[in-house]
Amino acid sequence: MDSLDHVIEAQQFNRDLLADLFAVTKEMEEVVSRYGSNIMNRRIMATLFYEPSTRTRLSFEAAMYRLGGEVITTESAREFSSAAKGETLEDTIRIVQGYADVIVLRHYESGAARRAAEVASVPIINAGDGPGQHPTQSLLDMYTIQKEIGRLDGVRVAMVGDLANGRTARSLAYLLAKYDDVKLTFVAPEVVAMKDDIKDHLVEHGVAFSEEEDLMKVAGEVDVIYQTRIQRERFGDRTEDYEQARGRYIINQEVMDALPSHGRVLHPLPRVDEIAPEVDADPRAAYFRQAQNGLFIRMALLRMLLEK
Amino acid sequence: MDSLDHVIEAQQFNRDLLADLFAVTKEMEEVVSRYGSNIMNRRIMATLFYEPSTRTRLSFEAAMYRLGGEVITTESAREFSSAAKGETLEDTIRIVQGYADVIVLRHYESGAARRAAEVASVPIINAGDGPGQHPTQSLLDMYTIQKEIGRLDGVRVAMVGDLANGRTARSLAYLLAKYDDVKLTFVAPEVVAMKDDIKDHLVEHGVAFSEEEDLMKVAGEVDVIYQTRIQRERFGDRTEDYEQARGRYIINQEVMDALPSHGRVLHPLPRVDEIAPEVDADPRAAYFRQAQNGLFIRMALLRMLLEK
Amino acid sequence: MDSLDHVIEAQQFNRDLLADLFAVTKEMEEVVSRYGSNIMNRRIMATLFYEPSTRTRLSFEAAMYRLGGEVITTESAREFSSAAKGETLEDTIRIVQGYADVIVLRHYESGAARRAAEVASVPIINAGDGPGQHPTQSLLDMYTIQKEIGRLDGVRVAMVGDLANGRTARSLAYLLAKYDDVKLTFVAPEVVAMKDDIKDHLVEHGVAFSEEEDLMKVAGEVDVIYQTRIQRERFGDRTEDYEQARGRYIINQEVMDALPSHGRVLHPLPRVDEIAPEVDADPRAAYFRQAQNGLFIRMALLRMLLEK
Repeated sequence: MDSLDHVIEAQQFNRDLLADLFAVTKEMEEVVSRYGSNIMNRRIMATLFYEPSTRTRLSFEAAMYRLGGEVITTESAREFSSAAKGETLEDTIRIVQGYADVIVLRHYESGAARRAAEVASVPIINAGDGPGQHPTQSLLDMYTIQKEIGRLDGVRVAMVGDLANGRTARSLAYLLAKYDDVKLTFVAPEVVAMKDDIKDHLVEHGVAFSEEEDLMKVAGEVDVIYQTRIQRERFGDRTEDYEQARGRYIINQEVMDALPSHGRVLHPLPRVDEIAPEVDADPRAAYFRQAQNGLFIRMALLRMLLEK
Repeated sequence: MDSLDHVIEAQQFNRDLLADLFAVTKEMEEVVSRYGSNIMNRRIMATLFYEPSTRTRLSFEAAMYRLGGEVITTESAREFSSAAKGETLEDTIRIVQGYADVIVLRHYESGAARRAAEVASVPIINAGDGPGQHPTQSLLDMYTIQKEIGRLDGVRVAMVGDLANGRTARSLAYLLAKYDDVKLTFVAPEVVAMKDDIKDHLVEHGVAFSEEEDLMKVAGEVDVIYQTRIQRERFGDRTEDYEQARGRYIINQEVMDALPSHGRVLHPLPRVDEIAPEVDADPRAAYFRQAQNGLFIRMALLRMLLEK
Repeated sequence: MDSLDHVIEAQQFNRDLLADLFAVTKEMEEVVSRYGSNIMNRRIMATLFYEPSTRTRLSFEAAMYRLGGEVITTESAREFSSAAKGETLEDTIRIVQGYADVIVLRHYESGAARRAAEVASVPIINAGDGPGQHPTQSLLDMYTIQKEIGRLDGVRVAMVGDLANGRTARSLAYLLAKYDDVKLTFVAPEVVAMKDDIKDHLVEHGVAFSEEEDLMKVAGEVDVIYQTRIQRERFGDRTEDYEQARGRYIINQEVMDALPSHGRVLHPLPRVDEIAPEVDADPRAAYFRQAQNGLFIRMALLRMLLEK
């Protein structure tokens, strides 16, 4: 796949397309530092969010404004009055594409973005469809690793926390499998361990991976720690297991002391207490830069989709 | 009435003003195809919605952006904190007109737009005031008929569905009565039949109309089928009557086979199941083009109100 | 303090800074009358509202648009999905500053704006933090007095209504204390009388003040009546006290007859019935002009914060 018609899932990006995207993303950083451009010439992006995700929405909207475009927005399906009257997603897309040049869709149902793209005459960007995909998050994670570490081939990444339910860790593992000599380590409580489908995919593509219990031991041997939030509700009644798991996988000064000097800590955010505040001041704490990379990646995608 | 100060109700538009409006609307289609203009020069439209109507709101906002303007927006009366503290609509208008050059008002009370216009120093556009008026919907319906059929004089229109409560069908009948040799046919379950006030108005203006039970018989003899949604709640406990009525008035392939080749199906949307999905691919299915005409009509109104 | 890094509280403004601000504000009135400027060059303001305050939000957003900027916005903490997941205010600020050039913060907790400013790399403007500060309201009140009366030194102001809980009256008293020969009169039911902390501050700064029961007697001897809303809930079960207090402090024609010809009535709005509608037509009723001054003040602050 060389041209970009819609952004539906992480899987649609191969190495070449990722390289193109990252080159455009780098340009976008310069556009922001010069306070924007007018390449969008007041074209309109609709952010159609069937469930709130304020951070993602604000990031997309800022991206469109930085490029000189405009935004029409709706935040919540409950307020989307047509949906409340029984309108299908497909009909809503058919109407909104009459008002906008690109639609950013957030939905609570897996596969919603693909359904939207099937009827749409304008580009659809998937901003998360339920337990399905959230490709722009995966892309910004990849961009951050490339930018912070300097390469993707040969990178060693520890994924920590809830790897079973965390959409971001799963997608990142999938995308990293496209690169050579990548080495992944999964550090997770058993109840939220990385699932077999991803492990099978890694085996199939010859990607080296291991599972470890001891975060401290892992920390010294990786380029990137990709931390994620463990949600209490995944543990049901097993409160003790939860507390123990959580306590074991906090990034604190001790972990940072073990991490190599060129290493980085990433996190898709929001965090609660799985990264100690004392870590923020460490230049290897890359998670806020990572969040800002979301702006650049989304600018690049908008440009690639609309500048044809 | 020649100049346009506010847009409050369908009745304020006579044939001459409609002709002017439709000429400007046609220009607006070209503006959109060229990706916008700057005639609004960053002037500000406030969308003041006391109840949500996402589609109408997005359409107005896109219209303002396409013209180079800006938008400040509030979606819901429940969030309008001043209203919650007991502020009158009139006071809210007096404040918001200090921030904006035009106010688009959606309200739950009939007559709210007129009350707003009485105190406003900027143009008010009624985006629906409860069971009252929703003039921009009526205007886009009229524009769609003129554009799709090529004329308004002599047009034959079947209105189908809930004609008693559907604001759009009532307003359309009212506006069509301004044209010559129009012929209207009302196809509705008895419980939601067209009301006497509109029928009296048609008689008074010499407009031919009839009532029919059989949609199939009507379909072959009209230029336009204007379908509307039948709401279950109008039938109370009479579930059987509802199911029967609904089933009888669905636009499907059989109806399309009866419709003349130049005929068109319109619908104010959202639809639920009163138009079968198989109809969408028929070029005579005009309802999504109709929705987009809403953008062009609203651009034209904004221009006529603000370009004085 | 000469330069302006953040706008956190009324106290940070001294006479010199207020004079600078008011000079820029006057320029902003001209910018609006010419339909905006481009000095913001599409920079982005984020309105981060953890509780709704529609009027304040719309005023800030209009201010940014009038200056050629853009806005990303969120209206309600309940919809701020990251906050719902336990994200701290500090983390949210660290993320949003990656998208925006200035952040307007409304929060339900006193001190939130200061906490935000401590971690922010972009200017923070406090748009109200709970029972704490709402400095832009105080600044627009001051600007309105200066503009309407022609001076701040020597001004005589009666503050009426709920002076105990009304943040605006308290801040105004505080700011007026910076000027010479100011004379304040507090007219309030005992249960919501001006509190001792403000009175102590006035004594300390040698500001003359008195407390009066009879609004009619006061009205003839002041330049400005600053009316505020009395909230029923402050009186608990004492309904009779509430009704009596409320009735005694309504601005009506009788009060206007007593007010000097150069006098002015101000109110932070929204009002309920503490100013009779008959007063609106009187040119000395300045409260809607005061609301619009909020636009000019906010434009001036944005310019001073971002044009460095």
